[in-house]
Amino acid sequence: MLRYYYAPRTCALAAHLALEHSGAPYEAVAMDFSKQAQRSQEFLAINPKGRVPALATERGILTEIPALLLYLCQRFPEAGLAPLDDHFALAQMQAFNNYLCSTVHVAHAHRVRGARWADDQAAIEAMKIKVPQNMTDCMMLIEQGMLKGPWVLGEQYTVADMYLYTISGWLAADGVDLHVLPRVMDHRTRMQQDQRVQRVEALYA
Amino acid sequence: MLRYYYAPRTCALAAHLALEHSGAPYEAVAMDFSKQAQRSQEFLAINPKGRVPALATERGILTEIPALLLYLCQRFPEAGLAPLDDHFALAQMQAFNNYLCSTVHVAHAHRVRGARWADDQAAIEAMKIKVPQNMTDCMMLIEQGMLKGPWVLGEQYTVADMYLYTISGWLAADGVDLHVLPRVMDHRTRMQQDQRVQRVEALYA
Repeated sequence: MLRYYYAPRTCALAAHLALEHSGAPYEAVAMDFSKQAQRSQEFLAINPKGRVPALATERGILTEIPALLLYLCQRFPEAGLAPLDDHFALAQMQAFNNYLCSTVHVAHAHRVRGARWADDQAAIEAMKIKVPQNMTDCMMLIEQGMLKGPWVLGEQYTVADMYLYTISGWLAADGVDLHVLPRVMDHRTRMQQDQRVQRVEALYA
Repeated sequence: MLRYYYAPRTCALAAHLALEHSGAPYEAVAMDFSKQAQRSQEFLAINPKGRVPALATERGILTEIPALLLYLCQRFPEAGLAPLDDHFALAQMQAFNNYLCSTVHVAHAHRVRGARWADDQAAIEAMKIKVPQNMTDCMMLIEQGMLKGPWVLGEQYTVADMYLYTISGWLAADGVDLHVLPRVMDHRTRMQQDQRVQRVEALYA
């Protein structure tokens, strides 16, 4: 059975939602970041990066949200969570997910994890100042173009919607004026009507 | 015909190498970053992110290195640049590529593009200080585990090798002691013996 290591208030929500939608049996294991559980010898043996999420499969560990999302789409194709038969559309989905992981999540992380990139406390504070504007800039690209509507890729509901939902849940705390993002907010509202989303998100509070 | 927008001294090298290996006809268009060509109205109409690379296909634009790499692998399967028939191995390749884009490239970018994340000059300088250690930490994970050898995924040469090669070319300037990375350096040496690599890299000096 698949085992999914996650922690509340992290991007692990995205692939957790995909697992829930896949219909596959899985066990979810909560890591306690307040106790630095992700830095324990036991967990580093599972994921040497010391981060969540990590998915334990019968063939080994997989990490990184866009990789996990594609894996779940390919392993459980009957769930219909990606345009697997259309290489161009799949590349658009992957590009969207990669933008979220490499640019948007990174912009967000400068508010809460600036110590990754500087030791100086004043520098860490300086990084926080720029987060609202950077996150607004990122999300405006999504609002005005990348989110085709009603779902990210258009008519098909995919794992990209789950990843967008995960990150759009951070925007208020990041200091973004949500009124400039009506389409992204409408996307959130529609996602929240799904009981599978409600069920998983309850673990992330 | 595919058209590839790139700029010297950028990560665009990775998908450029994949294009060259794919055997597909393509046109490469160099963007002059010194003239802020990536911020021109003309280019923003092609890629609103204002970044390279961007691949113009007959169905539209694609961006983001890991997405481009997978797209080229799927579109030109006869080139054999990914384990397309093995979902787990493909997920390992995607996880590797995502680690490079979201963690390693980002760690590097704090040396040369710190202004993305702070306006304060002292903060930008503080970010530079941490780059050698962060890049070393990232690359040690690759050196000691993720690079299976002889290639990233083991026996099969894939696009992950092209991406690793791209980023390992930045390490000296990032202040990393290359002696602690003998396997990564051996990987570089073997890549450099390939005339396709030599031909493309000449465009990136």
